[in-house]
Amino acid sequence: MHDLSQRLMSGDIRSLARALSLVEDRREGYVEVLKDCYRRTGKARVVGITGPPGAGKSTLVDKLIATYRAQGLRVAVVAVDPSSAFSGGAILGDRIRMQDRATDPGVYIRSMATRGHMGGLAVATGDILTVLDAAGFDVILVETVGVGQDEVDIIREADTVVVVLVPGLGDDIQAIKAGIMEIADVFVINKADREGVDRVERELHALLTLPGAAQGWTPPVVKTVASRQQGISDLVEAAERHRVHLATDGGGQDRLRLKYSQKFRDILSERFLMEIFARHLTPEREELLLQAFLKREEDPYTAAEAMLGRLRWK
Amino acid sequence: MHDLSQRLMSGDIRSLARALSLVEDRREGYVEVLKDCYRRTGKARVVGITGPPGAGKSTLVDKLIATYRAQGLRVAVVAVDPSSAFSGGAILGDRIRMQDRATDPGVYIRSMATRGHMGGLAVATGDILTVLDAAGFDVILVETVGVGQDEVDIIREADTVVVVLVPGLGDDIQAIKAGIMEIADVFVINKADREGVDRVERELHALLTLPGAAQGWTPPVVKTVASRQQGISDLVEAAERHRVHLATDGGGQDRLRLKYSQKFRDILSERFLMEIFARHLTPEREELLLQAFLKREEDPYTAAEAMLGRLRWK
Repeated sequence: MHDLSQRLMSGDIRSLARALSLVEDRREGYVEVLKDCYRRTGKARVVGITGPPGAGKSTLVDKLIATYRAQGLRVAVVAVDPSSAFSGGAILGDRIRMQDRATDPGVYIRSMATRGHMGGLAVATGDILTVLDAAGFDVILVETVGVGQDEVDIIREADTVVVVLVPGLGDDIQAIKAGIMEIADVFVINKADREGVDRVERELHALLTLPGAAQGWTPPVVKTVASRQQGISDLVEAAERHRVHLATDGGGQDRLRLKYSQKFRDILSERFLMEIFARHLTPEREELLLQAFLKREEDPYTAAEAMLGRLRWK
Repeated sequence: MHDLSQRLMSGDIRSLARALSLVEDRREGYVEVLKDCYRRTGKARVVGITGPPGAGKSTLVDKLIATYRAQGLRVAVVAVDPSSAFSGGAILGDRIRMQDRATDPGVYIRSMATRGHMGGLAVATGDILTVLDAAGFDVILVETVGVGQDEVDIIREADTVVVVLVPGLGDDIQAIKAGIMEIADVFVINKADREGVDRVERELHALLTLPGAAQGWTPPVVKTVASRQQGISDLVEAAERHRVHLATDGGGQDRLRLKYSQKFRDILSERFLMEIFARHLTPEREELLLQAFLKREEDPYTAAEAMLGRLRWK
């Protein structure tokens, strides 16, 4: 077992931070740490929180932390900053707000930037969850500003996906129809003391009763006013019910299988590319290829085929 | 040469549509079509148009089509619907609006959905551009609602990236700082007859003079009122200047090389996974693996290593 694995599993926070960076940056030894950690996973409940900017996700996360802590559970938070061209900035401020929690040894907060991850951010996020799970956290909250495909992929790493809405977002319920039905396990209408809450609730329920919507689990709609701690325990309870559902229902197993199937593909292709570029395609050789591509003397499809044609399987 | 390749290159629109579907769906023969097309590419100028919802991108695209058509150029439009959880819906309506153009044989409009693309949407978009370029379009406009990493990846497939802003979006200039500096080649302030245009312009110029901002090319800021056809020719001219810059400047070559380097990696990993799952990992074998992952009897990192350990290179 890797040194870091042993130490992080025994609760050493500094080793945990180092292991997370190692894994995020794909530095020497990261695969060993992931192997060690993987077999210790499956204990944490991973709850994803997503929703449009301004929905109050971070306040909600903050109150969730408090509630889980009151139950004696250790909580990790992964805040994924989408570095989106048009929605950045939100998480940074929220992160600072959550610093109150940073002095509690039962809480661990980790921010992730989205750029430059080999294999993509969802892969890196999944690996971070593996390490945090092995480190013994009972609850892991993943927060993203959910605006793009990338964020949807990230939030799918969670066992339970909470989509946070607020009254007064106009046509948003219509707009979210496409992507949201399949990922939300629990809906929250936050800032539920505002005007328009009934309309959002009505539209959500209409959405949830569409043909094909429910398959074993109908996402409950929970109303909260996070800033005043209202509805938080309802949310915790809804998430818990979903966890039990996943553990006992066939659909839950299918979902896990799909997740691991994707994870396996991601690992295979990341490792394959690492091997190709480390051993078989020197920078000089690659440069020659690229020049040939640019001049249209060679095309990348044929070149890839030639490369793969050299593979033999034992 | 594949039948479809020959026919689409000779201008047969029905074959073009079939080839595009073949490539998008990765059906039998798609690689052959891409190989055929690749060597015929490099003629089209690919202009990406992105910006927040409500910036008037589609009206702008519509006016750009008219302007290029007046120059006698054939124009293709690829409208990428991000199927985002929180920003969907915009493109569908816009698509309908563009139908006016659909009767002009010099205009071809293609919509792409974002889900279920092996290798990711940016890869599929890149391949679509390859086919359209080979089909002889002089200009290809790629429109996305730019809100996430995925959209940034897509828009990077363009030679010239136009970022569309509008006055009155509040703190958005601040918010977009992170991701935008590196992708925008031309800024458009659309709806420039509105209040607040000076402020947006001032902030943009401040952004553009930050240290590290300009590297050989300073993105021009073009003011437009697309709905009244104002500023469109300035935009066309700015895009043209950027094209000339790319062709003559070393930075332009670097950018192309980076793009092809990424493309080559994407093709390699997509083809590798296809081969593994077609030949070496039957559904039954995969199912056994997934069950072992779920029970934590096996971990996906070790399993991937074992799989790759069986590879030999000729």
